[in-house]
Amino acid sequence: MKRFFDSELDALRSHLVQMGEKSIEQVRLAVRAVVEGDPELARQVRAGDDVLDRLEVLIDEEGVRYMSLRNPVATDLRLVVVGMKAGHDLERVGDEANNIAKRALRLAGEAPLKPFVILPRMAAIAQEMLRDALDCFLQHDNDKALAVIRRDQEVDDLHRELYRELSIFMAEKPDTISRALELMFISKSIERIADHATNIAEEMVYLAKGEDIRHVDELKKGPRPAQE
Amino acid sequence: MKRFFDSELDALRSHLVQMGEKSIEQVRLAVRAVVEGDPELARQVRAGDDVLDRLEVLIDEEGVRYMSLRNPVATDLRLVVVGMKAGHDLERVGDEANNIAKRALRLAGEAPLKPFVILPRMAAIAQEMLRDALDCFLQHDNDKALAVIRRDQEVDDLHRELYRELSIFMAEKPDTISRALELMFISKSIERIADHATNIAEEMVYLAKGEDIRHVDELKKGPRPAQE
Repeated sequence: MKRFFDSELDALRSHLVQMGEKSIEQVRLAVRAVVEGDPELARQVRAGDDVLDRLEVLIDEEGVRYMSLRNPVATDLRLVVVGMKAGHDLERVGDEANNIAKRALRLAGEAPLKPFVILPRMAAIAQEMLRDALDCFLQHDNDKALAVIRRDQEVDDLHRELYRELSIFMAEKPDTISRALELMFISKSIERIADHATNIAEEMVYLAKGEDIRHVDELKKGPRPAQE
Repeated sequence: MKRFFDSELDALRSHLVQMGEKSIEQVRLAVRAVVEGDPELARQVRAGDDVLDRLEVLIDEEGVRYMSLRNPVATDLRLVVVGMKAGHDLERVGDEANNIAKRALRLAGEAPLKPFVILPRMAAIAQEMLRDALDCFLQHDNDKALAVIRRDQEVDDLHRELYRELSIFMAEKPDTISRALELMFISKSIERIADHATNIAEEMVYLAKGEDIRHVDELKKGPRPAQE
């Protein structure tokens, strides 16, 4: 897989690293905007989203150009394809950060339902998963990729816990419904961000092992419970 | 773009058509399971999801093999990359159908909040969008692709309408909260299915025009309203 890191692919690789850094930063700021009720931070996230959009287009262009000019062999080809797919996942992470920021704007100025505990924990794990997923792409660290895949369950469990907690709030105090709904969808966005990190890690394991482990549920901790 | 339809790529093309048919069928059955409160249909959807997972893996394999053996030029290369991306979108459509089916199982046996009107309309539009997105891939029909992209707004508007309607239900009758939440997330899933159809159409326009129209919001009817 060394060829990917040749100078010809430096641009693609460095754009992917940039996308990773930027998307993690967007998630961090968007969740801070929610927790601190800071509309200025939310607006910053919304303004920053087009950077990710442009980087994704660049990565696609660079990938297609490289494949077309260099006719790489199967392994290198897969690496470029995985890089392009990772770029797509990171762009979607940016979209979710943007969605969180929109909701942060609507929540700003409203009294918080209670101190934020689960949401920042979920967000911290999701950011770590993104960072680790990118690291395993850059360092070809397969164990790290498997660890990312396993952590997805933690975020799913926290999402379910928060969903239950917010449902109870809504039933007990109907005046909290609109705020609780915003928080539920923010939680859903974070859960999806963790899914994108998992996708990237799965693609990396696929690349490293030459086998496809996407859709192999045994890797995760048992079957997922039905309740969201 | 003719070369893509050469016998060598017949398998990839036919797998993509199969994926399209299957994913539309999964959405249709999942929404019927909700509307008719039929757990049997929901279980059918859940059992059918792995077909889509397997087809996506096949399409990726066929794409990489073709690119590696044939060293296609840029346009053909892009066509294969777009085919692989469409496969990924259709697999995610299957995931959303699966999520809808899970929620249909939880709703089965519960009294419906009111007759289903908006949800089946949203689902019908999303299915048409998927079909049209695939057709424009198979027939290189650029106008059809642009029409798909424009229709996304219809689904977004219906989603927002239903969200508002369900929020009011929840506030007025707290005993409807758990059912209303299930319906809100089902609506969100359908909205995402329409997004995936839009992604496929955008990729096709990009391919046909040789330019990237993803993230060009002017194509859509003005800026999106903030309320979800």
